[in-house]
Amino acid sequence: MKLYGYWRSQATFRVRVAMNLKGIPPRENEALDLAKGEQFNEAYRRINPLALVPSLVIDNGPPLTQSMAIMEYLEETHPNPPLLPRDPRDRARVRALALISVAEIHPLMVPRVRNYVEKDLGLGEDGRVRWIRHWVALGLRAVEDLLDNDPRTGRFCHGDSVTMADICLAGQVIGARNSDCDVAPYTTVVRIADECMKLDAFAAAHPRRQPDAPKG
Amino acid sequence: MKLYGYWRSQATFRVRVAMNLKGIPPRENEALDLAKGEQFNEAYRRINPLALVPSLVIDNGPPLTQSMAIMEYLEETHPNPPLLPRDPRDRARVRALALISVAEIHPLMVPRVRNYVEKDLGLGEDGRVRWIRHWVALGLRAVEDLLDNDPRTGRFCHGDSVTMADICLAGQVIGARNSDCDVAPYTTVVRIADECMKLDAFAAAHPRRQPDAPKG
Repeated sequence: MKLYGYWRSQATFRVRVAMNLKGIPPRENEALDLAKGEQFNEAYRRINPLALVPSLVIDNGPPLTQSMAIMEYLEETHPNPPLLPRDPRDRARVRALALISVAEIHPLMVPRVRNYVEKDLGLGEDGRVRWIRHWVALGLRAVEDLLDNDPRTGRFCHGDSVTMADICLAGQVIGARNSDCDVAPYTTVVRIADECMKLDAFAAAHPRRQPDAPKG
Repeated sequence: MKLYGYWRSQATFRVRVAMNLKGIPPRENEALDLAKGEQFNEAYRRINPLALVPSLVIDNGPPLTQSMAIMEYLEETHPNPPLLPRDPRDRARVRALALISVAEIHPLMVPRVRNYVEKDLGLGEDGRVRWIRHWVALGLRAVEDLLDNDPRTGRFCHGDSVTMADICLAGQVIGARNSDCDVAPYTTVVRIADECMKLDAFAAAHPRRQPDAPKG
């Protein structure tokens, strides 16, 4: 398995954690420097026409893209330990919590969008920071409410086992902190994200621990 | 089952189509007028803290939110007809195609974001239209490339049966047309979306055919 990614990418973090949790053997990592625009190279666009990371290539087959689709694939092909609960309604809850990051917060702060806000719309760095803070605050407030008002919340988002919801939430909190967002008001969110980062599978996937991360 | 939605909402369209395809019996529809801000009502925020539609309430249980999570729930609880293929890699392909709409295009054009661009950023109606066109064009171009460069594409996105990818794509094309985006360059996308709309399950879910749609 060859994983195309970027040290700072939240979506790549999700796939790294899922692979670590499932003990999927050493893989080849292909780092694309998104800051330098390497994702727009012709060769990578053939793998991922939207020029986004991650992409996962297995046995030279057609590339898998979209972190949520890749996590579902890993869950189907490597069911242990499970990253989704058993009951369909519980699975829907976990997926919905995951999708608040995947489809509501993160899409508004990915490089292509934040660069467009800063440069193409001419709002500058201040404008970019305000933009990100606005959507992160709305999204994390909603996750906090969903966690606090549901007895199914435990040590992690759903009971005491790690699920896709935790993977997405931990990545979102790292991303929010890296973008100078204040996450302190979301005490349950932060409690769970910090709990996740105590686990080796999460810690080893942290952006700063990737070989392509800048030193220091 | 009680479905909270809005006639014009792409995400609600996805759930309506999935329910229609699976023949899930008549449901109660609760229309929220997003143009009037009814989604921000206190009562609805208890159902969906992010104030987004759709939400699906089953037997007065905890609400299901996020259209993709709801479609997966329907797939698990009402497996026929299937909306995902059998092979894990094919399932990953279908989910990834669906997620380009769910997580890359649609999040940038939902009311909360387009209103923010138009009003809070002060870019006006022109700015809003340019914003939407930019992200729709990038996203649909990528879907077009993925469809054209894969032998698994058939009458629909994946072979000759309808999947979640088609549901999301048909909704995205309706949304793009409603937002004055030119979809003509994406010939495979348009061919498949039009093919979908010939089916009763899709046609009956069209925004214009919903009871809360404005007349005429």
